[in-house]
Amino acid sequence: MKLNLTRPTLLIDEKKCLQNIKTMLNKARKNNVIFRPHFKSHQSYEIGNWFKKYGVNKITVSSVKMASYFANHGWDDITIAFPVNIPEVRLINNLAKKTNLNLLIESIDVISYLDKQITNPVGIYIKVDTGYHRAGIDYSHTSKIKEIIKKLKISKYLSIKGLLTHSGHTYKAKSVGEITSIYLDTVYKLQMLRNNLHQAEKINISVGDTPSMSVIEKFDGIDEIRPGNFVFYDLMQNILGVCSSDQIAVALASPIVSKNKERMELIIYGGAIHLSRESLIDEHGNPFYGCLVELRDKDWGAPHYDCYVKSISQEHGIVKVSEDLFEKLKLGDFIGILPVHSCLTVNLMKEYITLEGNKISVMK
Amino acid sequence: MKLNLTRPTLLIDEKKCLQNIKTMLNKARKNNVIFRPHFKSHQSYEIGNWFKKYGVNKITVSSVKMASYFANHGWDDITIAFPVNIPEVRLINNLAKKTNLNLLIESIDVISYLDKQITNPVGIYIKVDTGYHRAGIDYSHTSKIKEIIKKLKISKYLSIKGLLTHSGHTYKAKSVGEITSIYLDTVYKLQMLRNNLHQAEKINISVGDTPSMSVIEKFDGIDEIRPGNFVFYDLMQNILGVCSSDQIAVALASPIVSKNKERMELIIYGGAIHLSRESLIDEHGNPFYGCLVELRDKDWGAPHYDCYVKSISQEHGIVKVSEDLFEKLKLGDFIGILPVHSCLTVNLMKEYITLEGNKISVMK
Repeated sequence: MKLNLTRPTLLIDEKKCLQNIKTMLNKARKNNVIFRPHFKSHQSYEIGNWFKKYGVNKITVSSVKMASYFANHGWDDITIAFPVNIPEVRLINNLAKKTNLNLLIESIDVISYLDKQITNPVGIYIKVDTGYHRAGIDYSHTSKIKEIIKKLKISKYLSIKGLLTHSGHTYKAKSVGEITSIYLDTVYKLQMLRNNLHQAEKINISVGDTPSMSVIEKFDGIDEIRPGNFVFYDLMQNILGVCSSDQIAVALASPIVSKNKERMELIIYGGAIHLSRESLIDEHGNPFYGCLVELRDKDWGAPHYDCYVKSISQEHGIVKVSEDLFEKLKLGDFIGILPVHSCLTVNLMKEYITLEGNKISVMK
Repeated sequence: MKLNLTRPTLLIDEKKCLQNIKTMLNKARKNNVIFRPHFKSHQSYEIGNWFKKYGVNKITVSSVKMASYFANHGWDDITIAFPVNIPEVRLINNLAKKTNLNLLIESIDVISYLDKQITNPVGIYIKVDTGYHRAGIDYSHTSKIKEIIKKLKISKYLSIKGLLTHSGHTYKAKSVGEITSIYLDTVYKLQMLRNNLHQAEKINISVGDTPSMSVIEKFDGIDEIRPGNFVFYDLMQNILGVCSSDQIAVALASPIVSKNKERMELIIYGGAIHLSRESLIDEHGNPFYGCLVELRDKDWGAPHYDCYVKSISQEHGIVKVSEDLFEKLKLGDFIGILPVHSCLTVNLMKEYITLEGNKISVMK
């Protein structure tokens, strides 16, 4: 690669990324569901523009700050898929003036608060817990949800948009079959809930996780999908069986600063402040933090699953390698690391470089 | 606290931080060793100035970028305590023009390379592995180290400064006694190595980890200390027994966005992109990511060790709390989280706010 790299750099393969976007968008269109991709995975208005080019005009974000960033770059239909953070209500009002804004709530208290404070029309999604148990109202608490909808009906600026869930437990699934089961269970619970609400107006069902959205082909009974990570995928998704390794669109280029022949290890400049501390567990119960790819003239090669980042500290990564690779790779050479969780790596690196050498900025 | 917080914010208690600096500096002076604190922990020229005020004029950093940042803010005696990254040699030459620069090497190959490429005087520390097994030449490989020193003697610009180690395995110690043992073992190995080298000129011994430097009172047989984390400490150091909880000088202020009474949990806006994914393991073998402190008028209180961040995702933190605290804390209130590893939290947050409301910037 002729990129004149000197330090850890996040490479993005634009072609793979565009292909990932097209695949998911086509699936959404075929299924006639709204495609509202989660932009927290890339955090970049330039990558946002790649979506725009294909006709995407609705997005999901995870914070008011991120909503403002994308609103400033021309996006005007935004769902903040994070429970409303009351102290930011002034900023939310500013945003609602200039965009079609949807907020996420999970209690009657927040609705009461917003009803008093919000000064422009805002759509409301009720966060429903269908089994992940991180946040949201349990899907079986129909009366609680009815109470919220009742309150929304008499609100001046707030209106019910739908039920929203994030089945994050698919990330812990052991197989594609298990991901499918979780997805079907999620949809079943949300449909049952919607039926029990007996509402005259349309209550959308919005689901989100990348594993389900990648594995499922037919989206029956839902109205909107909000995957994010699919834009790049990563080692976690690959090992989960959700994507092939050549769909992974980002890799951390890291220089080799030392070699240890006794241990067959490379020490790279690339650690927790580049990759994050997100890990996967190998078959012996040991964590690992990424996997090696060789950087080639115009792209990177297939992953060497037997050559992995076995430990990281703040700036160091220790990479276990095969004897062949140990001999082939020299001090100062760059290797690529496929990250375990691309969203966290992007958030740390704050900039991408395409394989053609173009810089792509990330929200600061 | 009257800081008008709206979103996750890294609070710094300036008094505690200054006290931590003074304590370590006084210990270094009493022991007549060079104090060369590691600035990767705070990454801020403003906090650097607090050290300067007390007469500190030598620093350690972990990258060429960080060395340039501090050089641009007036520091001119800098050790880059990370194996030389060959692709950055041009930047290293620029730095060596204007500062007293020390580099870290761990192979004869890098010395040969630098000898050809370096164009200004530079000090060399040889990285020695005394048991951490991350990087460095094993302390028993005397002949390898002699060969490097021989090469340095005939180099035009490179000169030997000393032997440097980082006993990072103290972070995994189970007790203060074990930290002491590791420290004594480290010093013994380095002294033995130095004796075996039979050099006429001074070979410094430089050691670095915060646990040892905090626990040991008498630094016999070493010449320089390079602790970094002590400037703030954190939950890891506290639970290791290295610092008291009231020496911890940073806390992440996070707003409560949801409450779950069935599970006695708070959902906070504060996750992996704020705290990092660094974890500690509780007595049941479960990871946790920080511990709750209540924010008061002018500071924060003692940690509630039974109220901890039990899981995190990108922006969410789930905090297990006692019944009392659950009732007391309201939606939109801010709580403080003592981070597990303050260096990684600082690196993510990129800004501090003092308890008096002053913003302190971090290297971008």
